[in-house]
Amino acid sequence: MDVETKANNGNKPCKEEIFETNLMRKIELKRKNLKSKRDLAMLYTPGIADVCLEIKKNETLVDKYTSKRNLIAIVTDGSRILGLGNIGKYAGIPVMESKSLIYKQFGDVDAIPISLATQNKAEIINVIKAISPSFGGINLEDIESPKALEIYEELIKTSDIPVFHDDQQGTAIITLAGLINALKILKKDRNVKICIAGCGSAGIGITKLLLAYGFKNIIVTDSKGAIHNGRTDLNKFKEEIAMQTNKGNLRGNLKECLSGADVFIGVSGVGNLIKKEDIKQMNKQAIVFALTNPIPEIFPDEIKNLDNVGIIATGRSDFPNQINNAVVFPGFMKFLLKNRIRKITPDMEISAAETIA
Amino acid sequence: MDVETKANNGNKPCKEEIFETNLMRKIELKRKNLKSKRDLAMLYTPGIADVCLEIKKNETLVDKYTSKRNLIAIVTDGSRILGLGNIGKYAGIPVMESKSLIYKQFGDVDAIPISLATQNKAEIINVIKAISPSFGGINLEDIESPKALEIYEELIKTSDIPVFHDDQQGTAIITLAGLINALKILKKDRNVKICIAGCGSAGIGITKLLLAYGFKNIIVTDSKGAIHNGRTDLNKFKEEIAMQTNKGNLRGNLKECLSGADVFIGVSGVGNLIKKEDIKQMNKQAIVFALTNPIPEIFPDEIKNLDNVGIIATGRSDFPNQINNAVVFPGFMKFLLKNRIRKITPDMEISAAETIA
Repeated sequence: MDVETKANNGNKPCKEEIFETNLMRKIELKRKNLKSKRDLAMLYTPGIADVCLEIKKNETLVDKYTSKRNLIAIVTDGSRILGLGNIGKYAGIPVMESKSLIYKQFGDVDAIPISLATQNKAEIINVIKAISPSFGGINLEDIESPKALEIYEELIKTSDIPVFHDDQQGTAIITLAGLINALKILKKDRNVKICIAGCGSAGIGITKLLLAYGFKNIIVTDSKGAIHNGRTDLNKFKEEIAMQTNKGNLRGNLKECLSGADVFIGVSGVGNLIKKEDIKQMNKQAIVFALTNPIPEIFPDEIKNLDNVGIIATGRSDFPNQINNAVVFPGFMKFLLKNRIRKITPDMEISAAETIA
Repeated sequence: MDVETKANNGNKPCKEEIFETNLMRKIELKRKNLKSKRDLAMLYTPGIADVCLEIKKNETLVDKYTSKRNLIAIVTDGSRILGLGNIGKYAGIPVMESKSLIYKQFGDVDAIPISLATQNKAEIINVIKAISPSFGGINLEDIESPKALEIYEELIKTSDIPVFHDDQQGTAIITLAGLINALKILKKDRNVKICIAGCGSAGIGITKLLLAYGFKNIIVTDSKGAIHNGRTDLNKFKEEIAMQTNKGNLRGNLKECLSGADVFIGVSGVGNLIKKEDIKQMNKQAIVFALTNPIPEIFPDEIKNLDNVGIIATGRSDFPNQINNAVVFPGFMKFLLKNRIRKITPDMEISAAETIA
């Protein structure tokens, strides 16, 4: 697969340049200058023992005398890297490292990639709990759904540091921000009909946030079609979605759901999922967010000349209107760390989306 | 306890200065400049997907396209921090962070402190195995003995990255280096009588390395006195020591063992363990390595005027003749990473000690 196919950037990077650029050592600590034996005596033994004993007396001082508070772990099990699927414990590391670059540059957050050798839910939970004393926050990343949702649910029960599930929360925030802007430009309101393709972490996160924001007419689809109350194959997260969306109880496939929709949000993980003809069935001034990476549900070039299309966005840096959580996670995590927030609420997410919009 | 008591440095740092200095953010990533959307398109989505897929095809490329190979985890469970004992999951972090500073400055190794929320042996092993895909090496640090030795033994069975047990191996290397130098200066040879106080990770590591180097006359003591074949309270690591040392089968306490010894090596974890009178019982030109931190087995000032003392060393930066593994671990780990060495052998340790000496 060549992810560069169809990129509309005249000066688009070729594969050689991509590989060359990615030789960069991305995760590298800043060297601090120990200038003398005296420095060493304060920063290492014997002086450091005083600092240890002070923290032992009062554990909250760990935030003052260590780097814990600004240090986060980006944890993945490699089971669902971008839209590439389960590519294992090593092949997902480049994505985590790149997220770390973005965390540093746009949020001054120090993020360490932790790619796990296990894909077992209980083990992942145990490992994250075990390593958390060193970190100020956890970013769950590219773990398949519903496992990721279950891990998140379990961790926030007991964690004393914020757990941010970027695929769910970051994507929801940036999508809401994009939608607020698109509706403003096209003069539409919260009564629009929204069709969401994908009911994994991103789809569920987006749906919940759109509901919290006041959208009422939402239909979510998965690979088997519309999520509705009559289905018996739903996990508990999808059941919750069934109860809160699709009031008309539509039972069709994605194509049928798109008919008469104002907004399409693609977070299916499946490239080229829909066709030009499907988009044609949407309302006038349609909003098309094809967000799956690296191959979107439909490429902008295929539909940009359709009469009924108002705004097109993707998750990629090389098309106009990028909707990517890279805009969200550095600042949002910084906010969580700075304010020692343990649990993220929909209000915080809405406020972040409005700020970005 | 004031670890600064008795430091013989005229310009010694006061507590205020130590705390002030330790406000420094020690663990901080280097910011890399993403200059354009084009950079982002190569280093993040969509370009990064090509790199992921390349590693999926050939996992050894993880060393080429990620920072794994130069990144290590310094893992502790807080159960035996310096000579301070079991001070928990937060209070040991300053020591790990300081080690990281030293790793960076003297070895250009990027070392991430991982302080665990568990002190259970099996859980520690599982966590280290689980996080190892992201790292090029593991430094086990300040975990109580014999648990640390058991963890090390288990990890090296299966680990595909080097596991370095600094308390055992780093201390052994620097102690051998110091001893080689001391013997040269005092014109003594490998027939010296050596008394080692402490049979934890450091004591066992030192004893094994001294034996491998050719020293024959060694007696090791623990809190109950000399380790000998007749004892029934020994763990398997101490049993091995009993079989290889103390050929005269001495059964006395540390004081009795010191009588007629040429070399004292203190790695007991107990400050002020011995008295001036004990040192007086040693041979002429005695070598005294009181290495426990932050309070040594005996302070240099107490014995430096004794007629029979030839050389005194401690583990501290603020006395002359520092014997501290800080001299060893950065370069030794760099060597392991660079040469992709999975398992450390005594030959490597001896070669490192000779290089340092």
